[in-house]
Amino acid sequence: MAELAERTRRFVSEQVFPIEREIVVDGRPMTDALRLELQKMAKDAGVFGPLSPVSYGGLGLDTRAQAPVLEAAGTSLIGPLALNCWAPDDGNIHLLAHAATPEQAERYLRPLASGEVRSAIAMTEPAPGTGSDPSMLRTVAEEVTDGWIINGDKHFTTGADGAAFFVCIARTEDGPTMFLVDQDNPGVTVGRRMPTLDHTSAPGGHCEVRFENCVVPDEAVLGAVGQGLEYAQVRLAPSRLTFCMNWLGLATRAQELTARHIQRRESFGARIADHGMAQGQLADNEIDIEASRALIHRAAVAIDTEGAASSSARHLASVAKTFVAEAVWRVLDRAVQLHGGLGVCEDHLVARFLVEARAFRIYEGPSEVLRWSIARRVLRNYR
Amino acid sequence: MAELAERTRRFVSEQVFPIEREIVVDGRPMTDALRLELQKMAKDAGVFGPLSPVSYGGLGLDTRAQAPVLEAAGTSLIGPLALNCWAPDDGNIHLLAHAATPEQAERYLRPLASGEVRSAIAMTEPAPGTGSDPSMLRTVAEEVTDGWIINGDKHFTTGADGAAFFVCIARTEDGPTMFLVDQDNPGVTVGRRMPTLDHTSAPGGHCEVRFENCVVPDEAVLGAVGQGLEYAQVRLAPSRLTFCMNWLGLATRAQELTARHIQRRESFGARIADHGMAQGQLADNEIDIEASRALIHRAAVAIDTEGAASSSARHLASVAKTFVAEAVWRVLDRAVQLHGGLGVCEDHLVARFLVEARAFRIYEGPSEVLRWSIARRVLRNYR
Amino acid sequence: MAELAERTRRFVSEQVFPIEREIVVDGRPMTDALRLELQKMAKDAGVFGPLSPVSYGGLGLDTRAQAPVLEAAGTSLIGPLALNCWAPDDGNIHLLAHAATPEQAERYLRPLASGEVRSAIAMTEPAPGTGSDPSMLRTVAEEVTDGWIINGDKHFTTGADGAAFFVCIARTEDGPTMFLVDQDNPGVTVGRRMPTLDHTSAPGGHCEVRFENCVVPDEAVLGAVGQGLEYAQVRLAPSRLTFCMNWLGLATRAQELTARHIQRRESFGARIADHGMAQGQLADNEIDIEASRALIHRAAVAIDTEGAASSSARHLASVAKTFVAEAVWRVLDRAVQLHGGLGVCEDHLVARFLVEARAFRIYEGPSEVLRWSIARRVLRNYR
Amino acid sequence: MAELAERTRRFVSEQVFPIEREIVVDGRPMTDALRLELQKMAKDAGVFGPLSPVSYGGLGLDTRAQAPVLEAAGTSLIGPLALNCWAPDDGNIHLLAHAATPEQAERYLRPLASGEVRSAIAMTEPAPGTGSDPSMLRTVAEEVTDGWIINGDKHFTTGADGAAFFVCIARTEDGPTMFLVDQDNPGVTVGRRMPTLDHTSAPGGHCEVRFENCVVPDEAVLGAVGQGLEYAQVRLAPSRLTFCMNWLGLATRAQELTARHIQRRESFGARIADHGMAQGQLADNEIDIEASRALIHRAAVAIDTEGAASSSARHLASVAKTFVAEAVWRVLDRAVQLHGGLGVCEDHLVARFLVEARAFRIYEGPSEVLRWSIARRVLRNYR
Repeated sequence: MAELAERTRRFVSEQVFPIEREIVVDGRPMTDALRLELQKMAKDAGVFGPLSPVSYGGLGLDTRAQAPVLEAAGTSLIGPLALNCWAPDDGNIHLLAHAATPEQAERYLRPLASGEVRSAIAMTEPAPGTGSDPSMLRTVAEEVTDGWIINGDKHFTTGADGAAFFVCIARTEDGPTMFLVDQDNPGVTVGRRMPTLDHTSAPGGHCEVRFENCVVPDEAVLGAVGQGLEYAQVRLAPSRLTFCMNWLGLATRAQELTARHIQRRESFGARIADHGMAQGQLADNEIDIEASRALIHRAAVAIDTEGAASSSARHLASVAKTFVAEAVWRVLDRAVQLHGGLGVCEDHLVARFLVEARAFRIYEGPSEVLRWSIARRVLRNYR
Repeated sequence: MAELAERTRRFVSEQVFPIEREIVVDGRPMTDALRLELQKMAKDAGVFGPLSPVSYGGLGLDTRAQAPVLEAAGTSLIGPLALNCWAPDDGNIHLLAHAATPEQAERYLRPLASGEVRSAIAMTEPAPGTGSDPSMLRTVAEEVTDGWIINGDKHFTTGADGAAFFVCIARTEDGPTMFLVDQDNPGVTVGRRMPTLDHTSAPGGHCEVRFENCVVPDEAVLGAVGQGLEYAQVRLAPSRLTFCMNWLGLATRAQELTARHIQRRESFGARIADHGMAQGQLADNEIDIEASRALIHRAAVAIDTEGAASSSARHLASVAKTFVAEAVWRVLDRAVQLHGGLGVCEDHLVARFLVEARAFRIYEGPSEVLRWSIARRVLRNYR
Repeated sequence: MAELAERTRRFVSEQVFPIEREIVVDGRPMTDALRLELQKMAKDAGVFGPLSPVSYGGLGLDTRAQAPVLEAAGTSLIGPLALNCWAPDDGNIHLLAHAATPEQAERYLRPLASGEVRSAIAMTEPAPGTGSDPSMLRTVAEEVTDGWIINGDKHFTTGADGAAFFVCIARTEDGPTMFLVDQDNPGVTVGRRMPTLDHTSAPGGHCEVRFENCVVPDEAVLGAVGQGLEYAQVRLAPSRLTFCMNWLGLATRAQELTARHIQRRESFGARIADHGMAQGQLADNEIDIEASRALIHRAAVAIDTEGAASSSARHLASVAKTFVAEAVWRVLDRAVQLHGGLGVCEDHLVARFLVEARAFRIYEGPSEVLRWSIARRVLRNYR
Repeated sequence: MAELAERTRRFVSEQVFPIEREIVVDGRPMTDALRLELQKMAKDAGVFGPLSPVSYGGLGLDTRAQAPVLEAAGTSLIGPLALNCWAPDDGNIHLLAHAATPEQAERYLRPLASGEVRSAIAMTEPAPGTGSDPSMLRTVAEEVTDGWIINGDKHFTTGADGAAFFVCIARTEDGPTMFLVDQDNPGVTVGRRMPTLDHTSAPGGHCEVRFENCVVPDEAVLGAVGQGLEYAQVRLAPSRLTFCMNWLGLATRAQELTARHIQRRESFGARIADHGMAQGQLADNEIDIEASRALIHRAAVAIDTEGAASSSARHLASVAKTFVAEAVWRVLDRAVQLHGGLGVCEDHLVARFLVEARAFRIYEGPSEVLRWSIARRVLRNYR
């Protein structure tokens, strides 16, 4: 496993960094063609598909083994795309592997796992629909002969632009239910890409999507009717951890760039690296990075040994997501600060990293909502 | 004075906010034509020129009186431009009012104070030149018959693109010296705009500028030869405070937007405004805002009563700059967080504010350099 | 005023510091005899009674003028006692000056202002009585012929041990009401001193007090019946600020001790004062101190110009109390850290200061309750 | 192992908590007799000696296995004493097991591991001697016929009062060297106990100790002459981790006490546990606790697999010590705050815990010195 992580690290730094530089410095657009090119390179390097089942062409790593590999992938903003372990496809692969029928798996999981297609996840809705609170879900699926009609507005639909299919959650009489909806269904309209700060790393954007009299057959139901939130939970803990692993990689990259930068630059009679305040920030970064890595490992062990839906896995994944999202933000912010004026130039990686990472504290559960759920669990334990 | 601040607040919210929205939401470019249009509106509203001497068409406010007016101006990213109290022109107006000969004042200060032209400040240099450490200055001015020849590379030259003239600092045999260099001097080349994160608020950008055998007459010397750093000091404390006032305004705007947003949105059975964690963040913002306002006032009193170059004014301006830059950043970051997903959309003001504000902790003295100088003063006091 | 503050600073450092050292190092007990000795010294130095009305022998300073004087007093843990500007007498003096009848003023305010006697404030109750929430008040006063009978349990009754009288708040049919109860009233029992962390600075401790069939005459009512909470509000903003001023003084003392200590001690080849991380902490202390001073001044101006019960005075006093209590704590904590092992020895002042100061974030309104009230005001402003 | 941790947890809560309460509430003194009583109870419960080698009557756990057991022990201030895994004996046991000759082991390690005697570690010296910087060591050992003469002053000699022997580090011609010095050596004088804040948990205190013409035989040398710092390093990483495990236990206890307290108390119309700001603090505590636990585990794995003196073990132990010391402090501080007024009463555990824990950020390496060493390692990695 250490070997695979090392190989990934080498692959990303040798083959992905140059392309990342073209994107960040020269403005090369992140297209699906480029994504396929990157994935081809990852396949050739033998590092493609760390999250995907072996039977679908992936490496089939357990969560613990994923951690160092995804951290290595994450050292570049586009490394996780190259390895096919980036949102929302990572979570959808996990979800389909868990809940899809054999027919659904052939049709949706296989091309997704191979990188042939991309997918989207349609959960969040504009106000007064569901944001962090699943009870506010307003998109409705009405049962009709041989199928369902879905109506509702979504936004922040990650990956929607160019996705081959959507995982859409909608209310039914029996409760929230997940549906697989093909991109060419005439009832789906992908609206504008929302101008989110994380534009580099998401080829399909975060889009507004409308489901309008969208008819799907019974076979479009993913898992059991009325169990949509349970499936969302299955998806959630691993998907939060994947995020953590990828973003932690970016923090380690920023730390390396910073450590090198401050050993080259001088001011006030010494290298910046010799100034105590800079050393303090570098050490704070290191502490944040090691604590993140340690928490990810703990949560990964819980997922692997007790299951992704277990109480302890969910708790530790919440704790890890909250801590890592904030720790990565602090690391990137200090990296910018230690780069001085260059740190706020968008053609320097650290500036771009900072801007891209801001949403990580909000997506997949804002820190406040996670803290609330963490607190409730503590209170229950000590009632 | 309270009346002027109130008038400014009304002017900005009624007339500037709509234009700011066009820039942020629709991508309307910030041009000099737009700047002149904004300044015309500010003149009509009687709020133009709070920093400029009365004899040059300004309002001639002392520093204390500037604080609420500039805070009101700063509630929009482009409000300070409208009032002509934005970097680098604010500092250059102050510097010229202090150090220019009558001829220099007529030629440079008058059109600058009226908004007819913009200016630039050419201090920072690429490595291994001067960044925060003035002793590393590498641009050289050599005395020749009737004048000087300037050679050197600058970067982060704020306002350079389209500036009518440059305040350039260069080493001479007698020490660092300031020069006024016309834009059309054939020895000056304005290179690329550096892609800094603060692109909305700076019409002239932060540019690379080359002075190559740039010949200027003796009359181009601003103040006394060899006294360039002393003049830079004169400019520094007021210019740091101006920054603080303007950016504090932006923080108050973000606070208002946030307070309104969380009273409209609901989740988990209550308005976001009713959740204690949101209230805690709102209160932290308020505390940061009030402490910033209080520190700005204290530093302003020191400047007005003891002079901008006095030890106490410089100390308090350093303290205020360090605190306010970090406090504003915290306020904007919490505002983004409380806006949830919308907070990271670039067509929402708070996302844009956050990105624009990052450089404030670096420009005009990075927090670390300021902390170092604050600590040295404390140590001297208690030797 | 600056002269008075300077005189106070000199008085405290020359005359009070040696006695403080005996208390902290040698364990000399803080008795009423010692308090009277200290107050005699303060009277001789012309600095006694900064908060008391001139007609009652005090200096009659307005809030703004109090700030530097009380900060100077606060440089010693027992300086405020010497000047008679320490809780709970400071607040009771203020309250009596505001609400007492002439007879009550002669009987209670005069000896209190002169330092002849001490007083106590009996508000807080054990669960399920009132803590921070005044609506939970359980002590009851029942009207009888010519007077009242008070029944209830209080705790954290500051100053109770040895107090000449109590200001006691109790529920009546017409609402919460304040009563003046003599120490020798047979219906009052002072129980144990609660073993709070702040044992040096409080001669009367924080005690459990029982009112059991405690009969008081009509003249014992302070102010109007049913207006007890309004009077508590009158007392609150000034009393919070007095606290802030006193504790800020302690922070400045710790900063001085630290700055001197780290210039004497060496490690790793340099004075501790030359290490950047130490400088960073010293600068953070200075920023916290200056921001505290600035906020206190702003709140003092609001009290002096708009009244202690005005909305803006209460808001700014809440903001100041929250910030200053936390800032002082941070300053003292950094001072301990920079003293190394010596910093955790109780015979060193900084260790003692840290322990004494902990309650400041809880007394007179815990930070969380204050944040809640600050947030509500912000929300009201932007409804 | 989980069973042993659970057994320890039960032992401590059922048998140690009541005695701890007598100490904290009633002021029962912590004597050696009490220590022996506690250790007898731990032996009966089968949980004594988690750090000691099996051949010396201990449980012989590896570092990973120690973590949950010591965390359970640490839920009481005196739990680690009961199990014999508390400073300085824990580190001395580790050191002797590593470096003692068979004769030394019989004479010193055996009675120490069994709890029959206590020991002390004499490293730190008063200024200008060694504090955090080992190069400043001033205590000298001069070689004479058949032995050595030690001269020097130590302070903060943990455990000295009542210790059977001292591990003393002194300079020799060949470099720093460790010596085993019996308590009854006439050349040793134990001076005053330093009045440190952590008085509950240390039966032997932190003392001033003088070595004056202290003659010891050659057999008193521990390990090789001139290798004292290397042995100190061997002791250091495990001893830092032991500290972390024990103190983390205290943090978990405070968290439990807090969670229970805020579910019992009401204010402002709800249980404190229902207020969002309280939930946020509880969640922050949980995150700090889980991150501490995760970092301890990572460092323990490094010690067990790569050795206590390996670069990665030392690095991770430094990171863990820095983070955990600060995290525990934050947890205890929030626990105090959530207890309100009761939180600052010394007869409540959380107040006592906070005061006891302050030194943890200084002993065994102040956070600043650790950050410096962490930063240097980062810089070396990315040169």
